[in-house]
Amino acid sequence: MLTEHIIRTTIEAALAEDAPAGDITCEATIPADAVGTARLTAREPGVMSGISVFSATFITQNPAIRVSSTIRDGERFEVGQSLAEVSGPVRDILTAERVALNLTQRMSGIAAMTAAFVAEVTRGNALPNAVTPRRYGHTRIVDTRKTTPLLRPFEKYAVTCGGGYNHRYGLSDAVMVKDNHLAALAEQGIDLTGAIRHIRERVGHTTHIEVEVDRLDQIPMALDGGADTIMLDNFSLDDTRTGVETIDGRAIVEASGNMTLDRVAAVAATGVDIISVGALTHSVRSIDLGLDYE
Amino acid sequence: MLTEHIIRTTIEAALAEDAPAGDITCEATIPADAVGTARLTAREPGVMSGISVFSATFITQNPAIRVSSTIRDGERFEVGQSLAEVSGPVRDILTAERVALNLTQRMSGIAAMTAAFVAEVTRGNALPNAVTPRRYGHTRIVDTRKTTPLLRPFEKYAVTCGGGYNHRYGLSDAVMVKDNHLAALAEQGIDLTGAIRHIRERVGHTTHIEVEVDRLDQIPMALDGGADTIMLDNFSLDDTRTGVETIDGRAIVEASGNMTLDRVAAVAATGVDIISVGALTHSVRSIDLGLDYE
Amino acid sequence: MLTEHIIRTTIEAALAEDAPAGDITCEATIPADAVGTARLTAREPGVMSGISVFSATFITQNPAIRVSSTIRDGERFEVGQSLAEVSGPVRDILTAERVALNLTQRMSGIAAMTAAFVAEVTRGNALPNAVTPRRYGHTRIVDTRKTTPLLRPFEKYAVTCGGGYNHRYGLSDAVMVKDNHLAALAEQGIDLTGAIRHIRERVGHTTHIEVEVDRLDQIPMALDGGADTIMLDNFSLDDTRTGVETIDGRAIVEASGNMTLDRVAAVAATGVDIISVGALTHSVRSIDLGLDYE
Amino acid sequence: MLTEHIIRTTIEAALAEDAPAGDITCEATIPADAVGTARLTAREPGVMSGISVFSATFITQNPAIRVSSTIRDGERFEVGQSLAEVSGPVRDILTAERVALNLTQRMSGIAAMTAAFVAEVTRGNALPNAVTPRRYGHTRIVDTRKTTPLLRPFEKYAVTCGGGYNHRYGLSDAVMVKDNHLAALAEQGIDLTGAIRHIRERVGHTTHIEVEVDRLDQIPMALDGGADTIMLDNFSLDDTRTGVETIDGRAIVEASGNMTLDRVAAVAATGVDIISVGALTHSVRSIDLGLDYE
Amino acid sequence: MLTEHIIRTTIEAALAEDAPAGDITCEATIPADAVGTARLTAREPGVMSGISVFSATFITQNPAIRVSSTIRDGERFEVGQSLAEVSGPVRDILTAERVALNLTQRMSGIAAMTAAFVAEVTRGNALPNAVTPRRYGHTRIVDTRKTTPLLRPFEKYAVTCGGGYNHRYGLSDAVMVKDNHLAALAEQGIDLTGAIRHIRERVGHTTHIEVEVDRLDQIPMALDGGADTIMLDNFSLDDTRTGVETIDGRAIVEASGNMTLDRVAAVAATGVDIISVGALTHSVRSIDLGLDYE
Amino acid sequence: MLTEHIIRTTIEAALAEDAPAGDITCEATIPADAVGTARLTAREPGVMSGISVFSATFITQNPAIRVSSTIRDGERFEVGQSLAEVSGPVRDILTAERVALNLTQRMSGIAAMTAAFVAEVTRGNALPNAVTPRRYGHTRIVDTRKTTPLLRPFEKYAVTCGGGYNHRYGLSDAVMVKDNHLAALAEQGIDLTGAIRHIRERVGHTTHIEVEVDRLDQIPMALDGGADTIMLDNFSLDDTRTGVETIDGRAIVEASGNMTLDRVAAVAATGVDIISVGALTHSVRSIDLGLDYE
Repeated sequence: MLTEHIIRTTIEAALAEDAPAGDITCEATIPADAVGTARLTAREPGVMSGISVFSATFITQNPAIRVSSTIRDGERFEVGQSLAEVSGPVRDILTAERVALNLTQRMSGIAAMTAAFVAEVTRGNALPNAVTPRRYGHTRIVDTRKTTPLLRPFEKYAVTCGGGYNHRYGLSDAVMVKDNHLAALAEQGIDLTGAIRHIRERVGHTTHIEVEVDRLDQIPMALDGGADTIMLDNFSLDDTRTGVETIDGRAIVEASGNMTLDRVAAVAATGVDIISVGALTHSVRSIDLGLDYE
Repeated sequence: MLTEHIIRTTIEAALAEDAPAGDITCEATIPADAVGTARLTAREPGVMSGISVFSATFITQNPAIRVSSTIRDGERFEVGQSLAEVSGPVRDILTAERVALNLTQRMSGIAAMTAAFVAEVTRGNALPNAVTPRRYGHTRIVDTRKTTPLLRPFEKYAVTCGGGYNHRYGLSDAVMVKDNHLAALAEQGIDLTGAIRHIRERVGHTTHIEVEVDRLDQIPMALDGGADTIMLDNFSLDDTRTGVETIDGRAIVEASGNMTLDRVAAVAATGVDIISVGALTHSVRSIDLGLDYE
Repeated sequence: MLTEHIIRTTIEAALAEDAPAGDITCEATIPADAVGTARLTAREPGVMSGISVFSATFITQNPAIRVSSTIRDGERFEVGQSLAEVSGPVRDILTAERVALNLTQRMSGIAAMTAAFVAEVTRGNALPNAVTPRRYGHTRIVDTRKTTPLLRPFEKYAVTCGGGYNHRYGLSDAVMVKDNHLAALAEQGIDLTGAIRHIRERVGHTTHIEVEVDRLDQIPMALDGGADTIMLDNFSLDDTRTGVETIDGRAIVEASGNMTLDRVAAVAATGVDIISVGALTHSVRSIDLGLDYE
Repeated sequence: MLTEHIIRTTIEAALAEDAPAGDITCEATIPADAVGTARLTAREPGVMSGISVFSATFITQNPAIRVSSTIRDGERFEVGQSLAEVSGPVRDILTAERVALNLTQRMSGIAAMTAAFVAEVTRGNALPNAVTPRRYGHTRIVDTRKTTPLLRPFEKYAVTCGGGYNHRYGLSDAVMVKDNHLAALAEQGIDLTGAIRHIRERVGHTTHIEVEVDRLDQIPMALDGGADTIMLDNFSLDDTRTGVETIDGRAIVEASGNMTLDRVAAVAATGVDIISVGALTHSVRSIDLGLDYE
Repeated sequence: MLTEHIIRTTIEAALAEDAPAGDITCEATIPADAVGTARLTAREPGVMSGISVFSATFITQNPAIRVSSTIRDGERFEVGQSLAEVSGPVRDILTAERVALNLTQRMSGIAAMTAAFVAEVTRGNALPNAVTPRRYGHTRIVDTRKTTPLLRPFEKYAVTCGGGYNHRYGLSDAVMVKDNHLAALAEQGIDLTGAIRHIRERVGHTTHIEVEVDRLDQIPMALDGGADTIMLDNFSLDDTRTGVETIDGRAIVEASGNMTLDRVAAVAATGVDIISVGALTHSVRSIDLGLDYE
Repeated sequence: MLTEHIIRTTIEAALAEDAPAGDITCEATIPADAVGTARLTAREPGVMSGISVFSATFITQNPAIRVSSTIRDGERFEVGQSLAEVSGPVRDILTAERVALNLTQRMSGIAAMTAAFVAEVTRGNALPNAVTPRRYGHTRIVDTRKTTPLLRPFEKYAVTCGGGYNHRYGLSDAVMVKDNHLAALAEQGIDLTGAIRHIRERVGHTTHIEVEVDRLDQIPMALDGGADTIMLDNFSLDDTRTGVETIDGRAIVEASGNMTLDRVAAVAATGVDIISVGALTHSVRSIDLGLDYE
């Protein structure tokens, strides 16, 4: 999903942002022909995401740099673990270091937070009395569109590294009907059931239609209209449980709204198929990684 | 610092990222000629940053949209406070909403966190026995290069909205000598004092030279070399206090390294001129803002 | 689907392609202040697509040009019908004319060809003994990825102007499993049924999965796997009819392969939901439109 | 004429258009390390154009792909003929396949149609009573500016692969005086003869001046003015013959207007130097080429 | 020739180059709402070129700025002459000032130097015993491809403001056969006469063919081949005169090579049609213009 | 300072500017497989700058070209000296030649002119009675912002090749307070001393503040305010000498205004630290370099 093209063009822009006219410190201190090696080391535990982005940053800066990694995306790492070795012209390694770390630390932060949420829903799905989700047999953690502008492909990829899944990419690839859309259709005399049919007639046959509902009584109308996914927005646990029962496998069930780490196990236990979590990408804490020179 | 050119090109890219082929939900539900009004409301308290970015997003999407704001960047807001009103074609307001919020929420999150740090150093400067910083009479909170790639101008601007200051923009506009640079010069037989002179001979007369030191005994050498700023990296409070005394106003003093909110008042009380905080931008929590349609 | 951003950037590139250093004929012949009016007239019958692209071309060339149209996208026009009036600086009208026509003629050609296919399937759906398609009550004509590179949004939009629908936009927004993918999975010991489940576990919940089958005996496996759409590739009419019966509404049925205008009515009569036609975009004949100056 | 720079930037944009966020089908089905070979085969006869564009598409997608071709641009091919072999990572071959084919099929379609026109004018030039064209000894088929926006260099190159020639590239590199330009000059009191002189005084010495005439009586004035080429627009065969006689080698003669395949031999027999054919590029039928995996 | 598109994109890039992160001096000193007026004044005499580029720079910086000029491109100005008035937000006027001046001063420098050369050839054409040039009745001063990379359209336009003409735009729009091309053809057994015919068969009918000759004995071969222009490279005055006589109006005659201001009158007197001067653009002295604030 | 990224993107744009649709002369004359060697030779003495830009131009045009140089940036060369050898495909060498020369000749012209100024100030610093500059022990020649738009990094780099230094890069990286800024602050009741303090409070701690003064009596106020550099604008030699004495090492002293080659030795002898020379970049004479084919 994270194409070479996107990686390369983003890195080029990021390197130019940081050093528009070169790295004046390195130019004044490091001989042009000095070579050396640095080691990427974890300063705290986490989940790797973006190790190829890390490599690509150095190689974009100078193709003579070699990067060998000892971890793959999606793998956990511990404090002090060595993750990769970077060797080549010291000037260019130092110049590219910050961009490489800024990207990888953020991606690994997203992966780590996603992994924490995934662990919680796994626990929730295994709770006594937990309802088994119908679509996949377990509950998925998915992201939202609350990503950092211009970095969506990196952040959505990082979510998958943490064991999560991606919601729609953006506004063009799936329909998400919210209250404002329903209000506009209501003014045209179209109710919720009619709304979904109205949309179905207008979109391509591969386009998924998801509907956001605020109340239990909207669910039958959404089912009648033929919604592919019904999102229960800010439902209580009890209402969520009732919603899952009402839908009964006839649509995918997504729970959304203030999904914090301490709540998701209980939500997963209601049998929802999907839990979407904005915080995965809108409030990221970077994982501390360091580059140590030898 | 945040030029119109940067705002416009970033917003265009962000809108294209979110809706590369349009907003298929709106196209299937909202009449092309429907107009309406939405209100930007704070869902939690914070400090505004990016209100003109918020406006520009809608206007870039459709110049027919009008945005009027009731707050200015740098001002605090309370829960429930109305911040701006957006009116015009409903389709385009809905389509641009997410990008506008993603940017403004992040910027306001940075501004709010910065303001919290600024409040703490203000408190620290006023503590009994606090040493008055020599350069500005008070301690400044500044950012680092640990910003989100491609969004540095937005994030550095947000820091100033919170009452903070900007460190160098990037690698091209000021010299920052770190241990790796010193090591490379040492191999050429140049010590710390010589290093600064070596650099001074090679950079323009408007270029500031900052040196990072790890130990107190490096400070006299940095002063002899004529460093403009000496950064005390990961110094204890006692060592910081000694460092400030040793430097005695002959260079700007910056304290750096793991500067959390609960530590900075004490650090400020030592009389340092500058405290740099990576967390201002590398671990941002977005402020929750909502757009309510009328 | 055809965003203002795409229209503007495409037109700017097209105008620069045609007149990289200006229109030397106009500069040598037309006074800079000459104004005039030209009328867009149909030289043959067709279906309009791109009238806003036509307008935008002139306005991009010079915002002082005014364009008023008397037709909307999707409407049919006759020979000699006046479609729009362009007035303003003559130099710029002449300079932009070719780009405006090149785009609009091609789009209208696609719309007209699509409309011809739509008319045929409408006829086919109404034939005696015709099976009613289960998904939409009628058969849809859809496009393919055989579009002109860099003009996909324009061509997909033109298909909808002719009454057709869009298949997936590209490789990123829906799964289309073809023989090569199945072969690769078979080497991993995964059969058709398993293939769809394998994919389902790996893609987002809003992602549609379509499977291309070459033989009737693959259909039950595709249904077992839970395919959203089954594409019958190069099936005979009899096999298509059997395929529709076998699927029995449990998946969307798409017919594909050499769908010429003289065949589609009969194919539609078999009850398939979707007929995809590569020729809509890979072999376009532009509709002849002319700009007559007054 | 088709520079490496244009090929590369066009392919990058086309690949991004088709797979903005990667090829989700391949990612879910093809192992990242699977390698294989595919063969480009003709599904119908044609004339090759763009074999290096075909190669470059795969190599842009992944430099590890190897492409070897057994045909060169401009050569004819038969049904079933093997044209090239593509080997390397299967994922990337499948991902790039559609873009490679979309470009090459269109270019080969243009080359084939051009070759058909060239064969006809060759036949026309050899007819009994045919007048030998003065400029080149035979009649040239040339293209027009009715090309696909953004693909002009590819389409103009394809015309040459079919044995045709290029007219001016666009509005900046040669003067083409049409009725609207003459009308504007007439308002300034300048007649056709004066018009050409007026222009000659204003353009560089390397700039060719072509004049479009609608009637025989305009020809002497065009000759007096010193036109380099005179285009006979929509002339009857008899008038074309008279035009060629009148011009008598003092200017290049171009015939234009509704030049269909069944007419051009007769037009060529009148002795015109140039026949321009808009249909070469505005109404292209792609040649069917297929990529078969082994 | 200098399109709005080129002007706008060049100015945007130039403003971003000068103030990538804004004008920190103005931001710290000038109130955001301060308005004012500045006057563009000539500090030395010259010939105006780029007054619309000057205006466009300020308007690109801030559309609220108004620029009114009292001179047009191509007009002479004297020391102290007021050329334009700029009014609006002071911050943006100051920020854009340098870019506006850098472009306009350079363009006016080129125009002034061109005008000096034009005056000399006008004098040369009027000398007693001067041969009247056959092509235009007078000798033209033309530019070369020795322009500043990325600014060619600006510099070629400036040459026309000074009364000069443009040679070919670049490598794609006219043929210029030099010794290296002839040497390559000679290795294929093709002499100068054959070379021109060889090329003629390969290029479009609107493409001008110019041949550079080093010796008088090459001229008859160039004429036999049908060269459109013959360039006499580094010929003595006597040889130039002989060359003009030999060519006798059968081709355009261009003189080239070390054409300094003190030589061109004598060269013009030989009757050459064209004198090309690299120094017009490769060694420009900017005209001193100043912006005085009121 | 001149990053690989800037070099590559500039060269790509320059090559496209010169040959947007290829080099039609070479395509018609040079066999695609012809290889050869050319030698870069100095036609006049100078100082090399841009030898890597020269190489990169050919390699960007065709990576198969090899360039080996026998000179390094900053070294002097004599007439006739061989500077580099270019070998590979003749077509591409010829096509890229002009761009390579246009860039390198201009850069070497700047370096040569800078070297001439540096030699003069060196002479001036050694004059009897010369005052030794306090900051660096000698006077520096520096550039200004009067560079060619879009080529600033190339030109600033060329200045360093000639032994000069760079002033601030642009408006974003250092403060330069001029009369207009002071006037705006005066309206707010802020005098020169206050102005510098006002600015100091608003800019980052690494930002250098330079103040331009027109009269001797402004100097004490500038010193009181804490200016980092004081620029004496258009001062007489006597006033410059007095200014240096007054400042007495408490700020860097820059002399500016009409600094011609015949004046700078005397100015340097007054003991100023910096002399800024606009002519280094606004009025460049390219050094004549030639590419001779073997």
